[in-house]
Amino acid sequence: MSTGVWLIGARGSVATTAIAGAAAVAAGLAAPTGCVTELPDFAAARLPGLGDLVFGGHDIAGTALAKRAEQLVRARVVPAGLPELVADDLAAADAEIRPGVRVPVEDGDQAAAAAVLAADITAFRERRGLDRVVVINVASTEPPATPNPAHDSLAALSGALAAGTAALPASSLYAYAALTAGCPYVDFTPSTGARLPAIDELARTRGLPYAGRDGKTGETLLKSVLAPMFAQRALLVRAWSGTNLLGGGDGATLADPAAAEAKNVSKQTVLRETLGHPVDGEVHIDYVPELGDWKTAWDHVLFEGFLGVRMNLQFTWQGCDSALAAPLILDLARLMALAHESGQAGPVRELAFFFKDPVGEADHSLAAQYDALRAWAGAR
Amino acid sequence: MSTGVWLIGARGSVATTAIAGAAAVAAGLAAPTGCVTELPDFAAARLPGLGDLVFGGHDIAGTALAKRAEQLVRARVVPAGLPELVADDLAAADAEIRPGVRVPVEDGDQAAAAAVLAADITAFRERRGLDRVVVINVASTEPPATPNPAHDSLAALSGALAAGTAALPASSLYAYAALTAGCPYVDFTPSTGARLPAIDELARTRGLPYAGRDGKTGETLLKSVLAPMFAQRALLVRAWSGTNLLGGGDGATLADPAAAEAKNVSKQTVLRETLGHPVDGEVHIDYVPELGDWKTAWDHVLFEGFLGVRMNLQFTWQGCDSALAAPLILDLARLMALAHESGQAGPVRELAFFFKDPVGEADHSLAAQYDALRAWAGAR
Amino acid sequence: MSTGVWLIGARGSVATTAIAGAAAVAAGLAAPTGCVTELPDFAAARLPGLGDLVFGGHDIAGTALAKRAEQLVRARVVPAGLPELVADDLAAADAEIRPGVRVPVEDGDQAAAAAVLAADITAFRERRGLDRVVVINVASTEPPATPNPAHDSLAALSGALAAGTAALPASSLYAYAALTAGCPYVDFTPSTGARLPAIDELARTRGLPYAGRDGKTGETLLKSVLAPMFAQRALLVRAWSGTNLLGGGDGATLADPAAAEAKNVSKQTVLRETLGHPVDGEVHIDYVPELGDWKTAWDHVLFEGFLGVRMNLQFTWQGCDSALAAPLILDLARLMALAHESGQAGPVRELAFFFKDPVGEADHSLAAQYDALRAWAGAR
Amino acid sequence: MSTGVWLIGARGSVATTAIAGAAAVAAGLAAPTGCVTELPDFAAARLPGLGDLVFGGHDIAGTALAKRAEQLVRARVVPAGLPELVADDLAAADAEIRPGVRVPVEDGDQAAAAAVLAADITAFRERRGLDRVVVINVASTEPPATPNPAHDSLAALSGALAAGTAALPASSLYAYAALTAGCPYVDFTPSTGARLPAIDELARTRGLPYAGRDGKTGETLLKSVLAPMFAQRALLVRAWSGTNLLGGGDGATLADPAAAEAKNVSKQTVLRETLGHPVDGEVHIDYVPELGDWKTAWDHVLFEGFLGVRMNLQFTWQGCDSALAAPLILDLARLMALAHESGQAGPVRELAFFFKDPVGEADHSLAAQYDALRAWAGAR
Repeated sequence: MSTGVWLIGARGSVATTAIAGAAAVAAGLAAPTGCVTELPDFAAARLPGLGDLVFGGHDIAGTALAKRAEQLVRARVVPAGLPELVADDLAAADAEIRPGVRVPVEDGDQAAAAAVLAADITAFRERRGLDRVVVINVASTEPPATPNPAHDSLAALSGALAAGTAALPASSLYAYAALTAGCPYVDFTPSTGARLPAIDELARTRGLPYAGRDGKTGETLLKSVLAPMFAQRALLVRAWSGTNLLGGGDGATLADPAAAEAKNVSKQTVLRETLGHPVDGEVHIDYVPELGDWKTAWDHVLFEGFLGVRMNLQFTWQGCDSALAAPLILDLARLMALAHESGQAGPVRELAFFFKDPVGEADHSLAAQYDALRAWAGAR
Repeated sequence: MSTGVWLIGARGSVATTAIAGAAAVAAGLAAPTGCVTELPDFAAARLPGLGDLVFGGHDIAGTALAKRAEQLVRARVVPAGLPELVADDLAAADAEIRPGVRVPVEDGDQAAAAAVLAADITAFRERRGLDRVVVINVASTEPPATPNPAHDSLAALSGALAAGTAALPASSLYAYAALTAGCPYVDFTPSTGARLPAIDELARTRGLPYAGRDGKTGETLLKSVLAPMFAQRALLVRAWSGTNLLGGGDGATLADPAAAEAKNVSKQTVLRETLGHPVDGEVHIDYVPELGDWKTAWDHVLFEGFLGVRMNLQFTWQGCDSALAAPLILDLARLMALAHESGQAGPVRELAFFFKDPVGEADHSLAAQYDALRAWAGAR
Repeated sequence: MSTGVWLIGARGSVATTAIAGAAAVAAGLAAPTGCVTELPDFAAARLPGLGDLVFGGHDIAGTALAKRAEQLVRARVVPAGLPELVADDLAAADAEIRPGVRVPVEDGDQAAAAAVLAADITAFRERRGLDRVVVINVASTEPPATPNPAHDSLAALSGALAAGTAALPASSLYAYAALTAGCPYVDFTPSTGARLPAIDELARTRGLPYAGRDGKTGETLLKSVLAPMFAQRALLVRAWSGTNLLGGGDGATLADPAAAEAKNVSKQTVLRETLGHPVDGEVHIDYVPELGDWKTAWDHVLFEGFLGVRMNLQFTWQGCDSALAAPLILDLARLMALAHESGQAGPVRELAFFFKDPVGEADHSLAAQYDALRAWAGAR
Repeated sequence: MSTGVWLIGARGSVATTAIAGAAAVAAGLAAPTGCVTELPDFAAARLPGLGDLVFGGHDIAGTALAKRAEQLVRARVVPAGLPELVADDLAAADAEIRPGVRVPVEDGDQAAAAAVLAADITAFRERRGLDRVVVINVASTEPPATPNPAHDSLAALSGALAAGTAALPASSLYAYAALTAGCPYVDFTPSTGARLPAIDELARTRGLPYAGRDGKTGETLLKSVLAPMFAQRALLVRAWSGTNLLGGGDGATLADPAAAEAKNVSKQTVLRETLGHPVDGEVHIDYVPELGDWKTAWDHVLFEGFLGVRMNLQFTWQGCDSALAAPLILDLARLMALAHESGQAGPVRELAFFFKDPVGEADHSLAAQYDALRAWAGAR
């Protein structure tokens, strides 16, 4: 299966790391550490090979991938020397990146903009002779979308677009374009993307799968194993507080309180749903530019045991955002190719393992999510 | 089902907290926080009620439970005022505590000693009209046992005992006595207990269940959810280092390097078996008397992600040992009563959820262990 | 020297702990741990004895000190049994507590209110035959004061008060009352208190010393030794981020963003002034009611070493606010008695050791502050 | 003042970083971050310029400095691209490195070995026309020296050497050689070096200064500011526990329990002497090869406040050993040049600021050490 991977934000850190890394792994220059689909549990699944992925995408920036890769060397994300070794792969992807739409999408003619975006993707699929293209949003986080009646149904949305109304946030415009181009779509960020009834209806109507949202690579990943531990041990969590120090582009975006709010909501869900009761405590997201592509999360969990004794757990997670996210992008491209191949339409709930705020009802326990993912991939 | 709970180390912190706590919960003075068997998942299981448990045990110390409970108030384990409110229950249990055997068991006539211990338990069962008695070892940790041919089979052990040889460590002598008295047996400590082929054979011969060993209430509990997370995310753990600061009786015992070694071995198993490869890093157990009944564990996990990027996770767990262990004692008493009632013999692998070093082959993932436990309890 | 200690917020946790603790130490029931003035360096200073302090104060609450002390036993601040042993001392202080003014001070006649407060203090001094009374504000933190021309000079303030204008925040009204009653005054909170030109002028005019503000008992205390370490080692601090989890009354007050802002400003000063440049990073104050009288501060310091290498320091401070603050109240009472006795007027800069935001220009290094304090106390 | 810096272990990470870094700073390619002597407080001191330092040394390894510098780029110690920019400086130092003596020094003829070492240094001084050469030991840590009567006086040592006895550990042989060559000597490691009465006597006899030992760059640096804080606040430290995870060469050496013991002894001194009483708690040094040149220290301090309340402080220090040590090597070279220039002989106590286990009686407070250093440097 020749599979295209079309990245929204294709010149960002996550995208560049994914493209360089896929090339490095395919060339035997690096192990596929962090790629879930390379685990033995997925050996029998009918997934496209890592080396069969073909990259392209949209971006509003114009910096060459080779230059971005060198920046990532200095940021300690990509090993020294690697960009030179995969220079051809970076150049090939570079040639497939088209200009994106700016946020906010001020131009009223979103129908025309979506048509251009969809045409870019279709042209990529045809030019490269691909069986399918999976579109994945790894662009910077948007603020929460303003409610709009055009979001409520495909008919309403179509009417608004036909009337020249700018009804969609950029991430949803990309989702709309991807689906109209016949492509599966993944929200790796907390932006709105496909999470509107109108877009969901579009996916179902076209018989296309979508997944998301907000890849979990740090604090929420830990919550998804620690919260079930407290629940299964009948220990009562009294307060769960967290501070996230983020550098890089996402940190800057989240310094905008509205965007932070979007991220916060998805971070809290896992606790409330796993523990079965609301939990005290705030989650802070601080932009610390000097951290670069790295992030540090500190969480403090105050819990109660037998006879009311108060105890606590603290953890500090010091991770490199792109190194954590990039292999999951490759996983999602392969798994969504499988979903598409097998004719699945609408939200793919079985990919909840990857997301902070998964579509549909889902168990928030990582272990349960892994079991569901494995079973799903094996059955296709 | 009227169920006796016979505690080896019945005047220790864990036992005293369990006895006082069971009374408090039965009287509606406290919630059953920390009691796994009180979760909705176990509501349909045919378990004895918390209020139906009757306590007794062996101990080499003579301090009254009421006095021990007051010490635990000062140690911030038991709430102020509670000992007075459950004074009758403490006195009732006090009246059922018999002198234990000293460690090391220097008197050669272990057969006679075992007979006395078994007679104590039998008399308790008859005097209180109990359907069954579950024997649980919560005494201080022993050093690892010296290998002895008498451990290899029930025949060899019987021969050695008949010959007046002191072949067994104290914990195993208690297990031997419990089983000969027809009682299920649980090792909550890392001591040898029932983990000898001869004792295992005795349990099977008598048709009795046993379980263990070494209750997980801190660092290993966290390892059993964090190690699967790294494995399922294909992140490569390069080194896992830990330092445990323990006060109280167990800390003092574990200051003995031989006993520490016993505990260390069970602590490392979970990592190697979950991650599928040996992992660098040491585990320290320091005795810090000033910590009293509290313990602090700090772990540092160095792991590798995509393209070899090194990241790390640290956690600090600050817990009260008795508050964590006591409700599990009540759980184990109830679950072993169920095992006995349903005729199960030999090691009960489905109780691996509770132990650092579970008997038999077991998945070391806490989530898998919980699922196994729930299924087992529901099916009986 | 018989010295009165008049506490604003006399029924709060800090005040109750200070009163009970002074009695316990004087009676030989407890060591003076945490009392700086009990160190050998201060043995020769002409300070009133801990046992010679006589307590009274203002409070808007009416709960008896004996009851507050029992609450502090349950909160693990005061040892079980102590309230009974010092019951007479608590009762004696109780009898000297008068109703305080409510915040905000809405009644326009602040001149009359101040006269009542001053009369309360004067009556206490005369009734108990005290050489002097030190007034210390340990009430809940106020929001920052609204600028008002009446704050600029004593003449302007006197005019406003005479005109019946409510120009002062409550903390400043107490400071005004204390000084007009001829008493030294200490701000232990970040509230405005004596930090207005008009009140400073009043103190100088009356020849009275004052000190403050905002006792440092956690994060800032650590900053005052760690920031100089970085500076003296020529290590470049790139970002210093902090999260403070507070329970208890102060946490609730600081949940008010305006009050938090007051506290934040004083917390940041030490970094900028010690390191000589502004430092990136936010400081959060979260109210976590379940923490009770305890607080947890986590700080993350990102710093740069030779050749630009980025490193980090993290610390977690888990402290009991009242246990940290109460002995400093006793220290300040004794030291301010000395300042008064020796005729010092205006701000006592040499007490910067105790405060987050000390009056006047001051070295923010704790070591330098300690040296200055010791020299000052020895020379009086 | 043209000053030579002769490094024992000249091809190690610390030495390579110091040489490359001095060149980078002199060329304006990097700021002198971490160089204490570049602080304004030392602007008036008569120190040689960083650019006037000329490097050479002994090493048993033969790897070229240029290659070592590339390894340090991969280890994230030296910035990518720097080795090329300072290639001439590295080559110049490379040309001045002579073979060192192996540890243990098994050849009996230590007198001859010392003569060769001294001749190497003397030849360097003359060849490069240097005013003086400061010798600094940055080689791997040795085990503690075996007591030997030849250590007790210069006469005894001279006799033993004349008799062909191998009386000295390698570090002391280097110190002996340095002093006989007329050079100031610095122990930056915990090895014995100049800390023998015979070597001390040699230094005094020759009128030469020496300093040491064991550069403080992590846990002990923090102890030297935190322990005084507890002492000055009259807070009672009940237990201070620490775990150090070390990669790199020093970690491997310290995995040898005897060497670890040497390091541990110097780490504990600061606590006992600062707090005035022995303190409970162990210090662990674990070798974690995967950490490379990085180290992580976790400390847990259990302390008592007013009325016996137990609280705690934890910190984690994640540092790059070479980036922390290298600038101090440059500082020590400059300061020892000043000591020599001004005719100081014997131990230079005023350099205690730099060392875990300073020679002579010293205040262990970093702040006091800094003040002493500044005063000393200013007065020369």
